[in-house]
Amino acid sequence: MEEVVLKATDVSEKVCEWRPPEQLRQLLDLELRDSGEPHGRLLALCRDVIRYSVKTNHPRFFNQLYAGLDYYSLVARFMTEALNPSVYTYEVSPVFLLVEEAVLKKMIEFIGWKEGDGIFNPGGSVSNMYAMNLARYKFCPDIKEKGLSGLPRLILFTSAECHYSMKKAASFLGIGTENVCFVETDERGKMIPEELEKQVCQAKKEGTAPFLVCATAGTTVLGAFDPLNEIADVCERHGLWLHVDASWGGSALVSRKHRNLLHGIHRADSVAWNPHKMLMAGIQCCAFLVKDKSDLLKKCYSAKASYLFQQDKFYDVSYDTGDKSIQCSRRPDAFKFWMTWKALGTLGLEERVNRALALSRYLVEEIKKREGFKLLMEPEYANICFWYIPPSLRETEEGPEFWAKLHLVAPAIKERMMKKGSLMLSYQPHRGKVNFFRQVVISPQVSREDMDFLLDEIDLLGRDM
Amino acid sequence: MEEVVLKATDVSEKVCEWRPPEQLRQLLDLELRDSGEPHGRLLALCRDVIRYSVKTNHPRFFNQLYAGLDYYSLVARFMTEALNPSVYTYEVSPVFLLVEEAVLKKMIEFIGWKEGDGIFNPGGSVSNMYAMNLARYKFCPDIKEKGLSGLPRLILFTSAECHYSMKKAASFLGIGTENVCFVETDERGKMIPEELEKQVCQAKKEGTAPFLVCATAGTTVLGAFDPLNEIADVCERHGLWLHVDASWGGSALVSRKHRNLLHGIHRADSVAWNPHKMLMAGIQCCAFLVKDKSDLLKKCYSAKASYLFQQDKFYDVSYDTGDKSIQCSRRPDAFKFWMTWKALGTLGLEERVNRALALSRYLVEEIKKREGFKLLMEPEYANICFWYIPPSLRETEEGPEFWAKLHLVAPAIKERMMKKGSLMLSYQPHRGKVNFFRQVVISPQVSREDMDFLLDEIDLLGRDM
Repeated sequence: MEEVVLKATDVSEKVCEWRPPEQLRQLLDLELRDSGEPHGRLLALCRDVIRYSVKTNHPRFFNQLYAGLDYYSLVARFMTEALNPSVYTYEVSPVFLLVEEAVLKKMIEFIGWKEGDGIFNPGGSVSNMYAMNLARYKFCPDIKEKGLSGLPRLILFTSAECHYSMKKAASFLGIGTENVCFVETDERGKMIPEELEKQVCQAKKEGTAPFLVCATAGTTVLGAFDPLNEIADVCERHGLWLHVDASWGGSALVSRKHRNLLHGIHRADSVAWNPHKMLMAGIQCCAFLVKDKSDLLKKCYSAKASYLFQQDKFYDVSYDTGDKSIQCSRRPDAFKFWMTWKALGTLGLEERVNRALALSRYLVEEIKKREGFKLLMEPEYANICFWYIPPSLRETEEGPEFWAKLHLVAPAIKERMMKKGSLMLSYQPHRGKVNFFRQVVISPQVSREDMDFLLDEIDLLGRDM
Repeated sequence: MEEVVLKATDVSEKVCEWRPPEQLRQLLDLELRDSGEPHGRLLALCRDVIRYSVKTNHPRFFNQLYAGLDYYSLVARFMTEALNPSVYTYEVSPVFLLVEEAVLKKMIEFIGWKEGDGIFNPGGSVSNMYAMNLARYKFCPDIKEKGLSGLPRLILFTSAECHYSMKKAASFLGIGTENVCFVETDERGKMIPEELEKQVCQAKKEGTAPFLVCATAGTTVLGAFDPLNEIADVCERHGLWLHVDASWGGSALVSRKHRNLLHGIHRADSVAWNPHKMLMAGIQCCAFLVKDKSDLLKKCYSAKASYLFQQDKFYDVSYDTGDKSIQCSRRPDAFKFWMTWKALGTLGLEERVNRALALSRYLVEEIKKREGFKLLMEPEYANICFWYIPPSLRETEEGPEFWAKLHLVAPAIKERMMKKGSLMLSYQPHRGKVNFFRQVVISPQVSREDMDFLLDEIDLLGRDM
């Protein structure tokens, strides 16, 4: 255990010990046999698992929208693993239900609602599904019983830069991906409200049934924030549910300095916000929050299982929140975040967000200074998107040939960094732009030296390309 | 930590330290403030959380379909909490993806399929949703893009004793709860195949579109197993997808003695099986398994996010299984089960199942011997459903008055056991039957003495009623 925690955060250790699938399968003894293995063998297996696992807590792991290790949250997670609760009824999870209530209440306060409701669930994608289904229920409660068959086409709107879970949700919920209208964004990746309104009007003209707008606060690739106030105006004018996917950007709400990124969020009907990202609560910790207080969530989701939600219990059964969920057993994900919040206070959380965004600024300035690095755009948040241009391309004109060659650079550098184990950082093509790196700063265990190292290392790995 | 693990399994400690919500809220300092708390205060908070949490690992916790503590799984869970992986791409979770593959392969073997596919997900309810959506996709792939609007009513069939998640799934997926046909069961709670066929024919006659039959292997309340072979015959005749919800009963497959309970399961198109129940892998550990090997799961669920599932990676991207999931980030739930399986071997798992079912038999025989206890029916599995008839009712004839009074007994005894903290056991009314207890035996840490205690304690608590 010590080994996992210490090695994983030690900058002198590797981020990963890369092995291709076929080779790793041979290195690990994965097979499950009739007889059990002796303890010595199991320990060796554990060591192998740790050795070949990616150290997501490592100061040089920048590959996803989460990173770093919060020790308070970790203690809480060890406790809940040992207690093994399932959060559906008060009788089985009294403490964790009250903790969830307290955390939701505080998050609702930060959104700026006077009251509200919510539930923790396994992922921002699932939160977005909750929102889509709830908006649909509000639009037409009969759908719960009757289904969509025979109804006009339900249409929803989201930005062209939204998370891919919107498409997944539309297909899963029987709405269909063709009924997701992608609204054009400006050059910074923000939804254009005028375009939204045009599309809504067009949809109405075509006789379809618009019911939901999903704005994004912190897009996955560019970290862009949609203009919530203007979008809320459009929603109000057309009577549409406004959901804000703030899975990534929601954490800026705890910072007085940066919360204006989400200006207008209090006008949303629902919000997805994942403290497991910038607030480091550990995967997964995802809240779905709803402004409505008329028990819409429960009405929409309840199935009233009489073996679990007995109405003749000796306590107030309104605490049995399991019937608001699409799950039956559910993990106490709010607790780990509560522990960190208790330990750091709101001010401590704020400091973390401020620190991450200050470090992002530092990296941006460094990129501007260095030869061979080129920013995609000025970032709003902690996503810093940039190209590395190897010396051989620096004199080439920025034409088709340049871009075609540059497209190959990031994947090749990524391969080298993985094999060396020095760094992990994601790359992607994006809406006509060739492969670029996306650096994300989250962990408070990360320093300016790590930013410098990042650029040095990319240059070192790509210099001969 | 020691305290959690040791106290929680010590039979001389209480199962729970009951406090009503209002009181518990005062006892715990739940509020999240601007400033953090000092370490001493945090430790005291942790102790309170442990103190007032239900000890689901306690030998006298029989309240849900999970119980007990498996130390191998717990070590694995501590490891994954410390490593904090997300299982979507091979580059971030090489070990855990291969482990998942190995566990799925073995589970598929036990189902009796030659090959197959699958994914671990957060709960049996979610597995059932996966099944419903996949069956629908197979029935009409266009629904992914076009949605259900304008289509004929899709109809599915399940037993009247099925888990409530079938209704939740139908409503969530836009199918509608009214399009779930509940098929009548026999006196033991098993679906009647002739009734199923009648309803399918009727639905076809009415011009609706039947697409799925969901059989249950181990119902939630009675622990009944639907006759899979006969149901598979009906499905074959009518070209319907057969999903088996073996969330609870699937674990009998590892026992040569009891696997015939699921005779015919190899004919299913998909199966839900939760090792976190009888195999004690820890919440949550739930596999959704599919017979199809034409990549149906991926075709149905993929959204092809280019920032995560880049196609120009330097390794075989077929290992990036995240696009088969409705989630984006996903926990490595297969790993804890793999660890237990490694440690005990299949024979060790088998012994646990055999032991739990032998202990269930013991309890049944004891109930028959004792005055004041009345079995609902001979159980097939580990659910032992029975009434406790207090002395004051033992001479009363079994008429409406008797049943009305008996209905109040179980809730009253439950209240007393919770307040005393001696035992936790669920009760429910069920399909016209008044409140009865459901005892479930799972944990290998439970003995005949615990069974005797259970009956003694119920008698002690209810004797004066």
